[in-house]
Amino acid sequence: MLKTIIAVGIPGVGKSTVLNTAMKELELRGYSVKVINFGDLMLDMLMKRGLVSSRDDIRNLPLSIQREVQRDVAERIGSELRRIREVSGSKPHVVIIDTHAVVKTGTGYWSGLPAHVITNIMPDSIVIVEASVEEILGRQAKDFERRRSDYSDAELLNELLSLNRYFAVSSANLVGASVYILRNREGKVRETASELVNLIENLRG
Amino acid sequence: MLKTIIAVGIPGVGKSTVLNTAMKELELRGYSVKVINFGDLMLDMLMKRGLVSSRDDIRNLPLSIQREVQRDVAERIGSELRRIREVSGSKPHVVIIDTHAVVKTGTGYWSGLPAHVITNIMPDSIVIVEASVEEILGRQAKDFERRRSDYSDAELLNELLSLNRYFAVSSANLVGASVYILRNREGKVRETASELVNLIENLRG
Amino acid sequence: MLKTIIAVGIPGVGKSTVLNTAMKELELRGYSVKVINFGDLMLDMLMKRGLVSSRDDIRNLPLSIQREVQRDVAERIGSELRRIREVSGSKPHVVIIDTHAVVKTGTGYWSGLPAHVITNIMPDSIVIVEASVEEILGRQAKDFERRRSDYSDAELLNELLSLNRYFAVSSANLVGASVYILRNREGKVRETASELVNLIENLRG
Repeated sequence: MLKTIIAVGIPGVGKSTVLNTAMKELELRGYSVKVINFGDLMLDMLMKRGLVSSRDDIRNLPLSIQREVQRDVAERIGSELRRIREVSGSKPHVVIIDTHAVVKTGTGYWSGLPAHVITNIMPDSIVIVEASVEEILGRQAKDFERRRSDYSDAELLNELLSLNRYFAVSSANLVGASVYILRNREGKVRETASELVNLIENLRG
Repeated sequence: MLKTIIAVGIPGVGKSTVLNTAMKELELRGYSVKVINFGDLMLDMLMKRGLVSSRDDIRNLPLSIQREVQRDVAERIGSELRRIREVSGSKPHVVIIDTHAVVKTGTGYWSGLPAHVITNIMPDSIVIVEASVEEILGRQAKDFERRRSDYSDAELLNELLSLNRYFAVSSANLVGASVYILRNREGKVRETASELVNLIENLRG
Repeated sequence: MLKTIIAVGIPGVGKSTVLNTAMKELELRGYSVKVINFGDLMLDMLMKRGLVSSRDDIRNLPLSIQREVQRDVAERIGSELRRIREVSGSKPHVVIIDTHAVVKTGTGYWSGLPAHVITNIMPDSIVIVEASVEEILGRQAKDFERRRSDYSDAELLNELLSLNRYFAVSSANLVGASVYILRNREGKVRETASELVNLIENLRG
């Protein structure tokens, strides 16, 4: 039995912490959990093909190459999901794909889940991890290393939070996946992770 | 001649009353009118297959089954539309499909018009019946029986009204249907129904 | 080498002026530039087929005919793009398709870039030219000839600006194009055009 979740969220909403916490809780409940980071697979494939040498290069690649590699990664994930479904038997398996619904680049907002990606993954649910603009700015202030000047303006963050929903809805609608808006309130990571675990428990793929 | 309309709206906007009033007016104007309730057909099919015993069970079904039955119902409606188009001749026929663009469930927001539904129905127009949050809350207060605690918070209603538009636009865009936003103002059901009748008159499918 | 841009924007944002200014700048930089006006091609085709005699008639045509001609025009543009790509060699070519993401008609909001259009064009980027409601109303007041009563209410303009984004995102998501929001500030046409030129320079189709 396999449940497939795509988790998206703009930088600073605390998605990684929520996913890590939920993963541990799911394993305690007997799930076999795999988190697939879409960007890591993109980077792997691009480096193997000699197209980039670091993560920051990805956003500056020609869109045609980004699209091609995006599709290749989505197909690879699709194969992996079919493999897991076959071997899973009655043991509950969860695959969480950690990615973005929308990415801000020098050439505009780029979809992380366009038709050629979402139709290969066919998730049960797209989970949008959200936080308030104040919380995102607060996290960025504490976290010098990851602070990104291109994501730190309040007006821009509001725009990104909105676009994130438009892109996620549009992707979900292509495959009939549900959209779950998961609010990650400051200091409530445990509660947010529990809500995600409950969603996964309630999904009966 | 056949005109196909999909009417959507979140609970409490007064969609049923508007559709019933418009239906009578259209019949007076010589139209052959059929209103198809998507949820009723879903329930019928699910009960025949022994999968649920009441309407409330639907929202708790596994998404995979919901999707399968959703597609089957959409195909059945597609066949019915082809049949009506063939027999309609020069007499004006209207089919109004009464459904939702988005439904709130325990596993997130679920699309009522995903690609596999909308491409089977190919409507001329998706009509979004809307009301203000105040009007929706007012109707819920008067209507004890249908009051639903999961739809009664103002913030949630605002979120639902927005998501409803995102989902409807995304579905319309897949088939080139128009999106008509029909505001149902308190105490103005007759006027709202007339606006819907005018839309249908102006459509030349 | 060919870069393909779709430029959209609701009436009054100053799209034409921005496109003309950018076109000149691109030519100075050695680009071969072609601006294709989707509406003009629609009008051409409809007039040749004897379906309309003026531009204003288009919005009142049956949706089925609008859709058919829309698809035909999109296919014609697709062929033209393939032709340009073949002959372009190493000289940089840009095609800018001047159109709308959404058009307000008597039968609702109609998509300018539905699936059957966007998949034929396969743009690198959809550029949404935007202005504030105050700027749009200001331009309409100065420009008597083009003032359109159906686009002049502030609430409606806000609705249109939002719907424009929903439709553009939904279209971009179908083909993996980027969405670039280009704010055309009052009196800053030159700067806005430069931003568009920079976007095109940075795109490496």
